[in-house]
Amino acid sequence: MSNPLRLGIAGLGTVGVGTVRIVQRQAALLTARTGRDITISAVSAQTRDKDRGVRLGDYAWEDDPVALARRDDVDVFVELIGGEDGPAKAAVEAAIESGKHVVTANKALLAMHGQALAEAAEAQGVTIRFEAAVAGGIPVIKALTEGLAGNEITRVMGVMNGTCNYMLTRMQNDGLSYDAVFKECEELGYLEADPTLDVGGIDAGHKLAILSAIAFGTQVDFDALTIEGIERVTIEDIEQAADMGYRIKLLGVAQMSGRGLEARMTPCLVPASSPLGQLEGPTNMVVLEGDSVGQIVLRGAGAGEGPTASAVMGDVCDIARGLNLPVFGVPAAELKPVAKSNQASPSSYYIRMELFDKPGALARVATVMGDAGISIDRMRQYGHSSENAPVLIVTHKAAKDALDTALAALPGTGVLASEPVALRIEDA
Amino acid sequence: MSNPLRLGIAGLGTVGVGTVRIVQRQAALLTARTGRDITISAVSAQTRDKDRGVRLGDYAWEDDPVALARRDDVDVFVELIGGEDGPAKAAVEAAIESGKHVVTANKALLAMHGQALAEAAEAQGVTIRFEAAVAGGIPVIKALTEGLAGNEITRVMGVMNGTCNYMLTRMQNDGLSYDAVFKECEELGYLEADPTLDVGGIDAGHKLAILSAIAFGTQVDFDALTIEGIERVTIEDIEQAADMGYRIKLLGVAQMSGRGLEARMTPCLVPASSPLGQLEGPTNMVVLEGDSVGQIVLRGAGAGEGPTASAVMGDVCDIARGLNLPVFGVPAAELKPVAKSNQASPSSYYIRMELFDKPGALARVATVMGDAGISIDRMRQYGHSSENAPVLIVTHKAAKDALDTALAALPGTGVLASEPVALRIEDA
Repeated sequence: MSNPLRLGIAGLGTVGVGTVRIVQRQAALLTARTGRDITISAVSAQTRDKDRGVRLGDYAWEDDPVALARRDDVDVFVELIGGEDGPAKAAVEAAIESGKHVVTANKALLAMHGQALAEAAEAQGVTIRFEAAVAGGIPVIKALTEGLAGNEITRVMGVMNGTCNYMLTRMQNDGLSYDAVFKECEELGYLEADPTLDVGGIDAGHKLAILSAIAFGTQVDFDALTIEGIERVTIEDIEQAADMGYRIKLLGVAQMSGRGLEARMTPCLVPASSPLGQLEGPTNMVVLEGDSVGQIVLRGAGAGEGPTASAVMGDVCDIARGLNLPVFGVPAAELKPVAKSNQASPSSYYIRMELFDKPGALARVATVMGDAGISIDRMRQYGHSSENAPVLIVTHKAAKDALDTALAALPGTGVLASEPVALRIEDA
Repeated sequence: MSNPLRLGIAGLGTVGVGTVRIVQRQAALLTARTGRDITISAVSAQTRDKDRGVRLGDYAWEDDPVALARRDDVDVFVELIGGEDGPAKAAVEAAIESGKHVVTANKALLAMHGQALAEAAEAQGVTIRFEAAVAGGIPVIKALTEGLAGNEITRVMGVMNGTCNYMLTRMQNDGLSYDAVFKECEELGYLEADPTLDVGGIDAGHKLAILSAIAFGTQVDFDALTIEGIERVTIEDIEQAADMGYRIKLLGVAQMSGRGLEARMTPCLVPASSPLGQLEGPTNMVVLEGDSVGQIVLRGAGAGEGPTASAVMGDVCDIARGLNLPVFGVPAAELKPVAKSNQASPSSYYIRMELFDKPGALARVATVMGDAGISIDRMRQYGHSSENAPVLIVTHKAAKDALDTALAALPGTGVLASEPVALRIEDA
């Protein structure tokens, strides 16, 4: 039997407590699987005197996570504090400097500082592992970095914010407005303290930035993402999309083409019959596409004590077993800066608008679309009681440029009674 | 840069050729990701003179896979011959004896000889990896052995024979009989030379035996499985099940309880709205359930050149990166023999039978069920033109004993016009 692997756990919120629970409950199993005892030397959190429902008396206590990260009796620093800067970053840097491996669930930290941290870790011969940072319990980092290592990755997609998917599902299934569902989620405590992180697509964007770096061998670059939240998704669009066989999801898509990286986290339509379209409630789903493997779909809980702690412990077990891969799959020094595509790849679009109900209105819209080079797959004017006529258009695949030209030209027709809503339809 | 990792590939069928293609096409990517060149030293197949559509001239040729396995210039022996005995087994044994790692797609070999091979490999300090043996391109072995290493696995389920799922889907969607679809698949070359391997559940059973060993830390024991193929699934049952919100799948289920291991590969019903129920066509799906992670669902192509070769290369990359885990996740010497449960866990059942259309027939059946301790959730007598009355029953959860008692007692009622069909309804 080798030496035990000794953890220092910083952050005793839901995930931290869940991790302690697994170490205690599954000690025998962890030893059988890794050939080593996995122990906890010390823990750290903001408040010491608090009943967390778990036995902590056997572990040393540190008020300062940086001090915890530097302890001689810690082999792996487990960072579950959160936040892209502040104590989480300082402690992770201290751990690396002290030659300790890091396991973290901190997507914001990696999305903003992943490259610098990876370089520092690899210079010290240690690794940073972060399965828990993306899609909770789903072992997607492992699948992408290791399982699909023989593939050139062509596209990565994901529904990776459970709260947003819950909200969209609730709107769809119960005919509720965005505002009503938002209020409900706020009351139920489903939203982050700053809800923009959820509904603004930031949290999911952090995850996509990480996946994209691994998939395409680039530096993590959160700023290269196009991000749009779900705040403007209306129950009307959800219902109309459903009526045409689609679901609206806050979907992350990253793909590489000759033009460069295209990465966006935006509301878009997917076929209702696709795995992504069928995904309801707070569950997460990640779709990985490779040149050999085709499409792999992974589904599971994206958050919560058990699932996230499971991901943390998967990483801990890998380290106990001696795995020491480059942080993002290839050495940090070889990761290329993101060359961002200046245009989204061609796509079908869903466009909804209201027209003044007068003769020739539809024809004018159709003319504008045609002039912009956009060909219409389906167009539908649906029943209305007001003086305006709601119109839906599904286009054939069109360049984003062409769409923008058409959207810019529409007001000039003089028949537009509302600003058009345009959503990308993703092949899924 | 370390030494190259040199492969010897035995078997140049679809998967062998696919593996050669990836090594050639993705050489730069593989080197970037593993830090080593991955090369092929030698290949072997039954026929040398055959155009396989891939360049083989740079590699040494061996007629005998055993000789290939022993070559000094081979670090990893890639066994893609197939078959539970014969040359595949001899060559894998030779490779291990010569201190070489083995990567294989051979589910039958592992299901029948996994324990002995794992012991031999671990005694030699080498590993056997077999991601390609289970569910094609889906990295399920990795997810289970590594990603979920912090979990006590509670249940593993899977649709792992693409041909069977294709057949059942085709029956369902097109109202065709089993015989018609079987004939079609035979003509299209979708079936193994011995079709019983597919439709009899053997192939999928091999895969389940492997997953079960890893999940529960037991020796691989194919004989501990209850196996029933899809040969007796009728279009009538598929349609009646659909009508009640279910789909019929050839589903593998392995779970451990205080009574021991329960593992079966049988046709059963799953809710149509569940991920398993929504799975159509030849795609595979594996469901992993752990005490912390909850339920993880993995979906992808279960066969084919690209997906299977992707799995082979994932294993090769792991070896190139220095990963050397016990073959089944814990050392072979610590794997316990399977203690087989003597009874299936309680379950709901779908029962279909035909009754003579005479007064009191239904009451007699209901009485028999009640006497056996089976409580009925739904019972339906559906329209008929013949003199017999078709009846469907969905039971509440019942012990298998009780079901068997009821089925044995039914003929005694004198109202049975046909042998009842009873299928388990799996919570999915």
